[in-house]
Formats: sequence, C-alpha cells, structure tokens
Amino acid sequence: MEMIDVAVLGATGTVGQKFITLLDGHPWFRVREVVASSRSAGRPYRDAVRWLQDTPIPLAVADLPVRSLEEKLESTVLFSGLDSSVAGEAELDYAERGHVVISNSRNHRMDERVPLVIPEINQDHLQLLDRQPWPGAIVTNPNCSTMFLAMALAPLHRAFGVEAVQVSTMQAVSGAGYPGLPAMSIMGNVIPHIEGEEEKIETEPLKILGRLGEYGIVPAGMRIGAQCNRVPVVDGHTETVSVKLGSPASLDEVRSALESFRGLPQELNLPSAPLQPLWVFDAPDRPQPARDLPVEKGMATLVGRLRECPVLDYRMVLLGHNTIRGAAGAAILNAEAMVALGYLRNGAFHREACRGDSCVEEVLAH
Amino acid sequence: MEMIDVAVLGATGTVGQKFITLLDGHPWFRVREVVASSRSAGRPYRDAVRWLQDTPIPLAVADLPVRSLEEKLESTVLFSGLDSSVAGEAELDYAERGHVVISNSRNHRMDERVPLVIPEINQDHLQLLDRQPWPGAIVTNPNCSTMFLAMALAPLHRAFGVEAVQVSTMQAVSGAGYPGLPAMSIMGNVIPHIEGEEEKIETEPLKILGRLGEYGIVPAGMRIGAQCNRVPVVDGHTETVSVKLGSPASLDEVRSALESFRGLPQELNLPSAPLQPLWVFDAPDRPQPARDLPVEKGMATLVGRLRECPVLDYRMVLLGHNTIRGAAGAAILNAEAMVALGYLRNGAFHREACRGDSCVEEVLAH
Amino acid sequence: MEMIDVAVLGATGTVGQKFITLLDGHPWFRVREVVASSRSAGRPYRDAVRWLQDTPIPLAVADLPVRSLEEKLESTVLFSGLDSSVAGEAELDYAERGHVVISNSRNHRMDERVPLVIPEINQDHLQLLDRQPWPGAIVTNPNCSTMFLAMALAPLHRAFGVEAVQVSTMQAVSGAGYPGLPAMSIMGNVIPHIEGEEEKIETEPLKILGRLGEYGIVPAGMRIGAQCNRVPVVDGHTETVSVKLGSPASLDEVRSALESFRGLPQELNLPSAPLQPLWVFDAPDRPQPARDLPVEKGMATLVGRLRECPVLDYRMVLLGHNTIRGAAGAAILNAEAMVALGYLRNGAFHREACRGDSCVEEVLAH
Amino acid sequence: MEMIDVAVLGATGTVGQKFITLLDGHPWFRVREVVASSRSAGRPYRDAVRWLQDTPIPLAVADLPVRSLEEKLESTVLFSGLDSSVAGEAELDYAERGHVVISNSRNHRMDERVPLVIPEINQDHLQLLDRQPWPGAIVTNPNCSTMFLAMALAPLHRAFGVEAVQVSTMQAVSGAGYPGLPAMSIMGNVIPHIEGEEEKIETEPLKILGRLGEYGIVPAGMRIGAQCNRVPVVDGHTETVSVKLGSPASLDEVRSALESFRGLPQELNLPSAPLQPLWVFDAPDRPQPARDLPVEKGMATLVGRLRECPVLDYRMVLLGHNTIRGAAGAAILNAEAMVALGYLRNGAFHREACRGDSCVEEVLAH
Repeated sequence: MEMIDVAVLGATGTVGQKFITLLDGHPWFRVREVVASSRSAGRPYRDAVRWLQDTPIPLAVADLPVRSLEEKLESTVLFSGLDSSVAGEAELDYAERGHVVISNSRNHRMDERVPLVIPEINQDHLQLLDRQPWPGAIVTNPNCSTMFLAMALAPLHRAFGVEAVQVSTMQAVSGAGYPGLPAMSIMGNVIPHIEGEEEKIETEPLKILGRLGEYGIVPAGMRIGAQCNRVPVVDGHTETVSVKLGSPASLDEVRSALESFRGLPQELNLPSAPLQPLWVFDAPDRPQPARDLPVEKGMATLVGRLRECPVLDYRMVLLGHNTIRGAAGAAILNAEAMVALGYLRNGAFHREACRGDSCVEEVLAH
Repeated sequence: MEMIDVAVLGATGTVGQKFITLLDGHPWFRVREVVASSRSAGRPYRDAVRWLQDTPIPLAVADLPVRSLEEKLESTVLFSGLDSSVAGEAELDYAERGHVVISNSRNHRMDERVPLVIPEINQDHLQLLDRQPWPGAIVTNPNCSTMFLAMALAPLHRAFGVEAVQVSTMQAVSGAGYPGLPAMSIMGNVIPHIEGEEEKIETEPLKILGRLGEYGIVPAGMRIGAQCNRVPVVDGHTETVSVKLGSPASLDEVRSALESFRGLPQELNLPSAPLQPLWVFDAPDRPQPARDLPVEKGMATLVGRLRECPVLDYRMVLLGHNTIRGAAGAAILNAEAMVALGYLRNGAFHREACRGDSCVEEVLAH
Repeated sequence: MEMIDVAVLGATGTVGQKFITLLDGHPWFRVREVVASSRSAGRPYRDAVRWLQDTPIPLAVADLPVRSLEEKLESTVLFSGLDSSVAGEAELDYAERGHVVISNSRNHRMDERVPLVIPEINQDHLQLLDRQPWPGAIVTNPNCSTMFLAMALAPLHRAFGVEAVQVSTMQAVSGAGYPGLPAMSIMGNVIPHIEGEEEKIETEPLKILGRLGEYGIVPAGMRIGAQCNRVPVVDGHTETVSVKLGSPASLDEVRSALESFRGLPQELNLPSAPLQPLWVFDAPDRPQPARDLPVEKGMATLVGRLRECPVLDYRMVLLGHNTIRGAAGAAILNAEAMVALGYLRNGAFHREACRGDSCVEEVLAH
Repeated sequence: MEMIDVAVLGATGTVGQKFITLLDGHPWFRVREVVASSRSAGRPYRDAVRWLQDTPIPLAVADLPVRSLEEKLESTVLFSGLDSSVAGEAELDYAERGHVVISNSRNHRMDERVPLVIPEINQDHLQLLDRQPWPGAIVTNPNCSTMFLAMALAPLHRAFGVEAVQVSTMQAVSGAGYPGLPAMSIMGNVIPHIEGEEEKIETEPLKILGRLGEYGIVPAGMRIGAQCNRVPVVDGHTETVSVKLGSPASLDEVRSALESFRGLPQELNLPSAPLQPLWVFDAPDRPQPARDLPVEKGMATLVGRLRECPVLDYRMVLLGHNTIRGAAGAAILNAEAMVALGYLRNGAFHREACRGDSCVEEVLAH
C-alpha cells in the first residue's frame, strides 16, 4: 500500500505536535506539510515550534517549511488541530478547495452535515460524507471528555438503553493547550469550571450514539448532566459517572457489555486501534492518571469502580488520555477507518456523491 | 463567665493539633490537658509532637506533659481527635468515667444513642444526651465531606424536601492526616477511592437530617450516591452535587433557601460560628480551595455554580475547609452549642437524666 | 499623625494587589488612587482587577476609579508595582512631575542617582534623594531573591567582611506575576533559568552593601555567583548559600552576627518592621516555604542549616516571602523609613536639596 | 551467548521493581529469583508487590515465588536493591555464600575492599574483586546524586584537574522510595535537607575519581561542598554545580571535554550504555526533569547552562534520571561491564584470586 501524504493544520500547537508525534512511523500516513499561523510561515518547523513533547521532533518534519493558512496545499488529507478561533472558517475553506479535513476542533462537530465519529461506535455516520456539499469533506472526533464517556455509554446503550447520565470530571491541564492555565491558578487547586465543556459533554454523545436516518443523524434520547473541573494533573481526564439504564441488567451483564465491546478498528486491526477499547479494573483505587495512561498506548478507555448506584442504576470511574485518544489519536483512528472503508485509497478521496436519490462515484485527489 | 478547662485526646495528631490551634485564645475553653499514645506520655507536648500547623504551638500548651489514655483526667470536657483504631473503646471508657467526650472520630457517629450534630441543623438531637447510659456523654460531628453536603442539603430539605442526591468529591490530602498519602501516590494524580468515605457520606446526612422521635432519631428518607476522589490539594474538599427535590422550587427559591439559612450558632452568635453558614458565589469558576478557604475563617460552606440539572433538579459545587469546619472546628462549635443550651455550665455537665418517663436534673463535674 | 494619601501604580498587577492588601489598615498610609493601563482606566477597581489575594479587596479601594498612567495624580507618594516594560519611563515622568516614587520595579535600581534601599542595612543611602535631579524622587528596593541574600550578608559583611558568595535559588512561581508560568511548564518540574535574575542577584547586593561616598555609592567588593531555578512552589524563595569571609570567624560568631542583627526599622519600631530581621532555625529540615512563611508576617528572612562549608567558609539555607518582604512589603518599609527620617512629613516630601556644596531645605506637596 | 540467570534482592521495593522492569527483555540477564522480606516469602511476586511502575509486571516474573533472605539461591549473580537497614549484613552473607552481589545500596560503597564503579569512569576499580576476601563478591554503584556529579566531573578531572566543587541539589521524591515522603510534607514545598545525602555526595566522587593503587583506591584530592534539597518533582534530580579547575581551560575546552567523554560502555556498546554519557544543552532553560528525562532512556547525564562562574571557574546544571541511571540502571551497567571484562562468563564468576603476589584463576558457579 502506498503511503498517503498528509498535512497537519495548527502544527505548532499542542494538538498539532501530538499529531506529528503519533504519525511518526505511521504505516499509512506521512506528514509532508505543516501549517500554522502566518507569523510562523516560511520558517523551518523546528524553529517555529515550541516543542513540548517528550520525544524529539521527528527528523522528517523538523525541516519542513511552515506554511500559512492561505497557502495552497498539496496533500489531500489534512489533520486539523486548529484553534477553534480560526478552525470554523479555515476548515470550511479547505473543504471547499477539495481537501479532506479530519478535525479535532470543536467548530463543526454539531453541524448536521458533518459526521462526529468514534469508529468503534458509529463508523456508519461516515456515510454523511457522501452528502456533504463541498468538493472535499470534513470529519470530526469528539471533545476529549466526551470521548471516554461515549465509549463507556455505547455498549450499555446498545445492550440495555441509557436513559440518563450524571458525570463529574477531573480534567488535566494539558486539555487547555499551551500556555493554557497559569501555574498560579491551578497548582494545589481545583477550578470547578471549564468554559464550554459541559455543553459539549451533554450534547456530543447524543449525536455519536444517534442513528443515521434518511435526513441525517437522529440523536439518542438520553439526558446527560455534566459538571466539569480542572485539577492539577498534567495528562489524563478522570470522570465519575452514574447511569440509568432503559432496561434491567445485572452488574455482570453491565461489566460483560463493557469488556466485550469491539468495533471496526478491532475487527480490521487498524494501526492505532486499541486491542480492547474498554478496560475494566478490579482494584478499588484504579484507574489513576499517574499509573494507567500507558495502557494500549493511550488509546483505551479505562473503567474502574463499577458498581450499583443508590440514585441511578450503575456507577463507575472513567479515565482516558486526553491528548491521545481524547484528541490527535482519535482523529488518526478516524482517518484509518476512512482508509479501511475505502474513502481514502491510492492517495485520493473516494465517495458516492449523492444528490437526492442519485449517487455517482467521485474521486478527488490533489 | 468562667473558663472551662478541657483536654484534647489524640493531641499529637493532625486533628489534635488543629483543636489546640483553634482553641488558642478561645473565650470559653482552655486546654489544660493533652492526651496521646503511651509512647509520648510524660514528655512535654512540644517534644512529643511533630507540629505541622503554620502558627507556633500556643505557649500555654507547649509545656503541658502528655498524658496517656490510661491516666485519669481532671477536665470534664474532652475534645477527641483520636484515631478511629482506638477511639471506639477509649471514648466509651471516658464516658463511663464521667467525661463529656466531644468527638470528631467516626466510631460512635452512627450509634443510635449518640447525637451526630451540626448545630445549625439539628441541635435538638443533643437531647439524646439526656438518655445516654453513661455517667458522662458522647457527642459527635460528621465526617468532613458529610459536613458540607449536609449543610447544603439542610435548608433545601426543610423547604422543599430532598429525595435524591448525587455527589462526587475531590478531597484534599490533609483529610488523610499525617503521614497520610505518600507524595508518590498523589502528586499529579487522582485516586478515585477513599476507604470508607462513600459509606459515611451516604448515611451520616440521613441521621443529621433525621427527626428526633420518641425512640431516637428517625433518619431522613433520601437516597444519596457518593463517589469520592483524592486530588493533589493540601486543604479543602470540593464536591459536585446534584439534588432531586420533593416539591417544585424555582432557582431563586433554592438560592434564597441556601443564603438565608441560619441556625442556633448564628442566633446566639457563638464564638466559632460563621456569620453566614452558606455562601453562594456568582463567579462561574468559584469557589476554589486555593482562593476561598479563608472565608469565615474556614467555618462556612461555600456554594458555587448553582443551576438546574438535566438529570435531577438542581446542581452546585460545594467547598469547605476539611480540617476546620470539617473536623476540629465542628467539634468546637458543638461544644459551644452545649454551653449555650446549658449542657455545660460552671465547668460541669448538666442534663435531665431520663430513665423511661422520669427525668431528674443531673450535674457532673470532675 | 495625619494619614498620608498614596497612589498605587500598576494596581491591577500582582505586586499592586499586594500593595493594596498590605496597606489596608496601615497606620500611616491610605490608598486614595489606583493607576493601571489605559484599558482599565475609568472602571471601578473591583471590575478592572482579576483579584488573586486570599483576602477580599479592601472596601475603601474597591470602588476607586482606575486612573491611567497619563492622568494627573493628587497623591505625593506613589507605590510602584509597574511592569518593567513601562516602569522605566513612567517612573521618571512621575519624578519629573514632582511625585515621590517608591518602586519595586527593577528599572532604576542600578541608576547611580537612585538609592536601592533595605532600611535595616543602608538607610543612609536615602541621602541620595537630596541630590536627585528631579522635582520629585525615586527610591527602589531590591529584587526578591536579592532581598534575602543581602539581608543575610549584611551582618556578616559588617562583622567579618564577605569576599565571595555562591547562591543557588529555588524560586516560587508567584515571583513571575500573573499569568506568569504556564502550569504545563512547571507542574512537577524544575526550570533551571529565570530571565535576568542571576544578573540582579550578582550586582544589587554590591550596591546595597556599598558605602555612600562623596560621588555616590561605592559598591562592595565581593564576588557573587548565582544560579536561579524555578520550582513548583506558590510562594517563598529558598536559597542555598555559601560564603567566604574576609576574616576568620567561628560558627558561633557567625550565628550571633545573624541573630543579633537589627536596624532602623527595629530601633524605631516601624509598623511593618519584623521584630527580628533574621531568624536562625535549628531544626535540620527548616525553614520550609509551606511551613515557615507566616513568621513575622512574611517580613523576616529565615536562615537554616548554618554550618561550615568544605569549599568556602560557611553555608546556610535562606527562605523569604517573595511577594511580601521580597516585593511590596519592602517598598512599604522603605516608605516608613522615609517617614521616620523626615523625608515624608505632613503629607509632603522634605529634603536638603543640594547642588554642589549648597543645600537648601525643599518641601514638595501636591 | 547463554543467558545469565539472576536474582533480584529487595524485589518488592522501588529499586527492585526498577531492576525487574529494566531487565525485562535484557539480552544477557534473566530474572529467575526474587527475594524480599520474610513476610512476603512464599507468595507469588504479583501478590506480594505493590507495583508502582507504569508498565505491567513482566509475565516471566509475576508468578515467581518470593524467596526470603534466609533461603538458598540458585543464581550466581544477585542485583541488590535491599534497604540499607538490612543490606549491610545480608550482602556480606551472600558474598560469603559465594554470590556476586551487584548492589545499589549504600552500605558497602565506602568499604575499601569494594569497588564503587561507574563503568565510563573507573572500570579498572573492578580489579578490587580479585582481592576480595569472600568466595563471592560485592560491587556497588554510587548514590543517585553522586552519579550525575561524578559523571560530569570525570572528564574535567582527567583533562584539567578539579580542585573544588559546589553543588546544590533539587531532588525528586522517588529518590526516597515508597512510601517515602508524605504528600503533606512536600506538595508545594521545598525541604532543605535529605538525611545522609550530603555526606555521600561529598565523599563518593573522591573514591570513584580515585586511582587504583597497590594498597587500594587512593581518593581524588578535591573538596566538594553539597547542599541537598527535596522538591515536588516525581523523577529526576537537578543539580547546580560550580567547579574550580586545577589548570586553566577555556569554555570551549570544558564543553568539548564533556561532550567527547566516552568510556568502556560506549566502546563496547554495552546493552544499557547511553550512546553519549554526557549531553550538553544549549537552550538556556534546559535540561528539565519534565521534558528531558527520556533522553538515552534515562541513562545519560544532561548538562545545561555551562558558563563561567564569578566565584569558582565554571558552572553548569546537571539532570539525571535518579531511578534509572541513578540506581537500578547503574547496577545493570556495572553487571554488563563485568560480562564484558570477563568477570562473568558462562553463568560463572571468574577472577584472578590474589593472595599477596600469587594469583590463581578462580571460577565460581552455583
């Protein structure tokens, strides 16, 4: 199989850096272009970036010249870690210009034309691509905290239905990017608020767990209540969750549903797929961000303290790596699913372009 | 008014140190005896203690000889910060020997003969003292996390009824005493478990909010689901709470119930009483442990982010100072309430000792 | 004595906030004007500031309208916590306009016309004010890390001479102001560099410990080598120090010199003066920022681990409160010394204005 | 080459766990026995250990039965991470019983019969093994902080001589093992004292940099002054260092000496050897524990801020991974050097056993 050249948008930011780190040595994708704000444009990537990863800048990327958002790109596939202040317009522009934007930004997640995808759960939503109005396409993955919650809800919703969810988060500072939170604000402290976060957790899972209908996604019917907190942890979002099911289930059935959950990435053994999407821990004090994030290279959702809840039905603790499965890794797995499903092949974007009832095979390459 | 001499049990521990710090300069109580394990006995307090407060050891206490649990004490009133491994038996012994034990330990909280008191809420439960089988008495205050939850639930329960509560805590390391948690366990980490804590939060409020009936306390009927977490914060427990009310109430009514809540300590202006037991913050990112604990010298419960909940009815964030209002300060306020209600006067313990229907005034002094 | 009205420059910054906090209830000074950048100008202080102190905004200041740097001020005395990017020019302007600027900023510290003062050490340097070329005046205090080092060196230099000093610092994040360091940069980390800090520590003590000569300050002749590090501590700079003396001294003599050190603030019992400028700790693991900063309300310099050094002569650990004695508190003590020495009286600035050999009493008031 | 079976002493402790982690997949050594205190004896390792590494327990070790110190071992080679409270006697016993103890414990480091080895520096000291009085042998590696200091001093001492060294450390909490420091002691704090640490840093380098003479090691003649501090960092010891050289050298010469330093591990490309023992950073704010520890898998010593010193000659910042190169990794590299030099071959211990002038080849195997 031929390597697919890709560009990274917002390449100097923390999500962009993680894209570049995770794509280093990837069997299918190769970073050939890096895009950042115009003040970095023209400089070699190594000089433009304030590199914060704990592995060095991959050699093949270090000397790439940084391109500005205005420049024409050669890559068909773009991974977007753009800041939400610019992602909205910029990603639309790229789609108009015929690029496939695989975005971690929040701007288009709830656009009814855009699939919000977790390949283990709703890879069928990628069919929305066939009806997108642009020459190119936009695909999104959820917010970091949504990711782990949706992952845990999916098997329960399939097996028993989920009616209501309470979630309280303890989120890492890396989720706010760099510079993000001042040390003086968060050292030895808890901040009981993250701007815009609760709204995302309360709505994104409904779309992800929704059904692809004739006129788009029909959202799932559950109610979600989220309370989001920032804690002095570098990486790893922890969430306490309580769930009300639609039909009765024993604790064993719930546990079994979580542990046996598998999806497309596992069936096709995609390069970034965790072997097991959900890990259930038995130790009463696990999972912990300082101990358990390396499991499945940060691509799994970790479940602990699964037991009955006196108010709703079951409760548990979730943990996930917010900058890997909760961000760049999620977008890369989306891209891998698109390869596996034939949307991306031979370096080009393939779809059944549909207008009303008539569909034609369409191929797009740069 | 004459000063009341008191002893501090478990005086070298972190709760004991806080008792000594908070009682320094107290208008009613004077620490005259300090009690610790037998390996400290006989040494001057200053040499026996590993002092961790950020004010010096009060001069009047520094040279007191440490007494062992076996020694006879002269003080009628004992503040107990004993470790739960010994508090159970030791406090019973002291009550048998005619002392009034005002305890922060968990051992006797759920004993049906022992009042579990927050003076703003259930000072009437102190009437249980009249029926206690011992020459002396035992009074307890709740667990640190329970304190702030019960304080917020009380006015809602009175005004509207509370049917169900979800609470997720982010608790400070000082709650585990000293040495408590190893730095390697909690630095930059979240531990999603605190041994025995959830059970306390799920049961203690039912007793506190219960009704004093003919045969003891009739617990309140609400369901509480708690998920407790340790976070890398030194002082201050934060709790996200969601509440289902028994009867409809508007957001304004809920807020007003919280803010206007007052009890005996406020009415009688007790020395350690907060002017206002519940403070409601408007700023979306408050209260925070690193900013707001000094409010009311750590004796208030701080409420933030009060708003509707998509799953239950209302949600909010609570914060309180776990080693002050959540521990030693709570016991001291209980003692002050006992003075105000006449249980403690002229250095003696007064009660209507009741056996069946017949009650007689009983006075006990050492 | 009449209260002296003062203005605070840079009032919304962290140093400005500390000025306002420390001046609340001050017996001599009263904050009547607050000055900040033009984008805050006109708004009430409470709305313009992001208040980060753990006591509330003093009521008398909360509603003061923020003035811009361009506006005319009524106060003669200005406390400056201006950012160094604007302090250089702005403070000169104020001095030209006849104000007495008591500054914590670094810009004019090494100006040969400007005294760099620690009242315990070199209050005589205030005589430079008599020769300053401006209608008003500028007085400075040293950098936070310099403060504690100079304070420990002064008695040793007087008694034995100091020839060489090695110092390695572990500085708190509050020293960088707000927002200052990103949490992602410093949580669980050490940064072995603070821009410009080593130069200050290596030069400022020479001026402070210098001699007031006919033509200005003759700097002390010692060599200082500094290595500055940022550590994840909120408040409190710790410094390991090693000193080579000019003449032999026993450990007891060194200790005695430190402990017995007193200066003008102690002799005149100035309102902000520590009773004892230098505290020497015996416990082998003290002083510690999380334990000992409250000593003398943050105005003392704490010394620990005093002992012989295998390379130079003696070594020790220093600790001080960087935002109190190391910043705003230092400037306030300078102002108090100016009152005590007659430079500030009846709300006016008095000096012997000297041009060449002829001096005349000069009084300046706004 | 045949695999050498080894035992790990103190296998449940933090050093023992690191031995097991680093030896997993080692090309020459295979862990076949694990030894711990008698209270763990008999249980499978997985049940006896509180595993704190962020990779799982290697499968081949997880089910090994824990042996007690009293039991006979089959392995000739023992890696010792024993606590210093038992290591002194236990390691002697093992040497008497014919084992080769490669120890990270401090007890025998300064024993004149025992080599204290860093293979890049003084592999020739291993010749002391030929004269050890025991059937087996004891080899030690230095204290964690000594390691990085000695590594930086070695090339300077060889090229220019080193006369005096000032070092101030900022050490990670993992250096104190588990449970080690209470969170309440070190969170947001600096502790300016580590029991016994300064003595080690001031003496161990003299032995390591000493010369193997006819009658043992002749220590190097330099003076070292150390001030040791604990900071809230999980892994990675940072040290500020200032050095006085014996003969003049330019900054370029000093830098070149550091960067070009190589030793036996590099020449023979030993499995755990860093390619380059000393890395010199140019960025003014590096190295940092949160960024740079992964360099060379934790086996290199990182140097930053190399420049002239106003007091001695040159100064710099050092950083190293205290639990890898500073502990278990150092012992493993010692063992690899012993294989390379022929002391360990075919699973047996070979030496020229010398008594006076007569030496005979001696082979020892279990």
